[in-house]
Amino acid sequence: MTTVREIGELALIERIAAQVAAAGLSAPTVGGFDLRLGIGDDAAAWRLSSGTEVVTTDTVVEGMHFTRQSMPWADLGWKLWAANVSDVVSMGAVPLTGVVTLGLPSDLPLEAIDGLYEGMLDGCRCYGTLIVGGDVVGAHELFVTVAVNGVCEAEPLRRDAALPGHAIAVTGSLGGSRGGLQLLTSEGTLSATEEHVLVAAHRRPLPRVEVGQALVAAGIRCAMDVSDGLTTDLAKMCAASGVAARVDATSVPVASGLWSVFPDQALNIALAGGEDYEILFTGPRETVERAVAQIPHAAVIGAVTEGDPGKVRVVRPDGQEIPLELAGWEHLR
Amino acid sequence: MTTVREIGELALIERIAAQVAAAGLSAPTVGGFDLRLGIGDDAAAWRLSSGTEVVTTDTVVEGMHFTRQSMPWADLGWKLWAANVSDVVSMGAVPLTGVVTLGLPSDLPLEAIDGLYEGMLDGCRCYGTLIVGGDVVGAHELFVTVAVNGVCEAEPLRRDAALPGHAIAVTGSLGGSRGGLQLLTSEGTLSATEEHVLVAAHRRPLPRVEVGQALVAAGIRCAMDVSDGLTTDLAKMCAASGVAARVDATSVPVASGLWSVFPDQALNIALAGGEDYEILFTGPRETVERAVAQIPHAAVIGAVTEGDPGKVRVVRPDGQEIPLELAGWEHLR
Repeated sequence: MTTVREIGELALIERIAAQVAAAGLSAPTVGGFDLRLGIGDDAAAWRLSSGTEVVTTDTVVEGMHFTRQSMPWADLGWKLWAANVSDVVSMGAVPLTGVVTLGLPSDLPLEAIDGLYEGMLDGCRCYGTLIVGGDVVGAHELFVTVAVNGVCEAEPLRRDAALPGHAIAVTGSLGGSRGGLQLLTSEGTLSATEEHVLVAAHRRPLPRVEVGQALVAAGIRCAMDVSDGLTTDLAKMCAASGVAARVDATSVPVASGLWSVFPDQALNIALAGGEDYEILFTGPRETVERAVAQIPHAAVIGAVTEGDPGKVRVVRPDGQEIPLELAGWEHLR
Repeated sequence: MTTVREIGELALIERIAAQVAAAGLSAPTVGGFDLRLGIGDDAAAWRLSSGTEVVTTDTVVEGMHFTRQSMPWADLGWKLWAANVSDVVSMGAVPLTGVVTLGLPSDLPLEAIDGLYEGMLDGCRCYGTLIVGGDVVGAHELFVTVAVNGVCEAEPLRRDAALPGHAIAVTGSLGGSRGGLQLLTSEGTLSATEEHVLVAAHRRPLPRVEVGQALVAAGIRCAMDVSDGLTTDLAKMCAASGVAARVDATSVPVASGLWSVFPDQALNIALAGGEDYEILFTGPRETVERAVAQIPHAAVIGAVTEGDPGKVRVVRPDGQEIPLELAGWEHLR
């Protein structure tokens, strides 16, 4: 197997550019997008004739976010692309272009890079996006950073606009990715169909551009993606908005298969598990209900309240608070 | 000293956001730029009323691009910002916004992050740019990735447009940064003024937005920044354009101080040393001379020729070829 050290920077970049070119991606058509320069110059360049530009960035580090055992390279590439797309989508925007930074140990086989780009190019095909550039550097530890630009025709959806009295909703079921991760990191092989579904949710999460667009069309103004876990991300939204929240435990849509595979933990996995890339949003009840009616599997799950900013309570129908048994994702600890 | 692990992700992001807010940066005014959302949401957002968007990204990895001994944190932050600005400037564009990814070992003291942002915020003040977001992840090895967006009012300058017969020029003297690095990695303390000048060129390189704009105004179409070394980068430009080049050794502007500090190596350091962030450009001779006349320290250094694509020869006045004794920067090897 040829390694990164053997091929060197220049030939590696040529190889990547050839792989991207061979994918024959179609350029996005939103916002009057017109690509002027892609991979190979000091910067990529494009024109837009309308809209608000958005940019986001997301990173994976080997040993922190993935291991070679638990995640095939193409799935890793897909996931990283999807994580960036999800951030763009949850702004009510459409993704356009991405730049990719590779931090590469010198003994990494080229097959790993081929696989990463294969997954990212799958993401490009699915989302109508382009890989337009990046940076390749040596590193002792493998990391990949993607930054994606997008455009929204309306005002961007923001997370600091939740108001007391707002209804809270999510665009789909939660916990599938976390359930898949728990299966992958436990002993034993996958047997039931439900287990394969959960693992697929972990490896190939699917943010949906049309869902973000439906929120904008319905008049929603406040939204963010659920990437670190429902209660963690709702707490962030509430802190940014200076409000508190009450979640009705029985209203939370739990991912298909979680109840049968993890009967005792299903609700907690749905509350804590991130990376499903559903969107959390709030608004006046009528507006939220209109949005929920247009999005399959979306559900109203609670209400914004006054109270300690960032405080989230999950309650049973009898009003009793449920203790949160699993933590969401916090990095660095 | 508080470490990254002790403060945790959320408090660290708040701390960074507070540092950025306290800097009181002025928003860019080019292209009708209008910031809608900065740090704290799923993505940053802004509007532009005119121009072509550009994006670039650049990374530093501890132990690969810097050591804590050779580079104060604030200088590292400055340099990384400057490297991105340089890529934007060499497109004939003006930088606007940047997103910052931190890959952080858990035992890193917060002072390091304070210093990094201090340097990047110095860069923001100098270049009229904003830090609008980013990502914080755990890592065993420290790395920092910045992606900068910019805008150009005219067509972007590109590196694949050099034609046989074009004159080749650079916008200023070369080798200062590499000379400073050689001083820092050798034994002994700095004594002469020239040594301090070279070290400053290494630690605080200064890409100049107005120089890129002057090239556009003069009618230049082909340009790139000198980041990996003159001969290395000229070879890349020639390969992209399918041409060769001849550089006149006596015409290369050598950084002030190099001749006195490194009398035997000065020319080779100027030919091989990167990170001075001057711009290499080509064009019809009259156009190039018009540009050179408007840019202090700019110089015509050679001519584009037919020949093996990417082949660069450095020749003395008598026509004899000079062997290149120092390599430029190639990563991964």
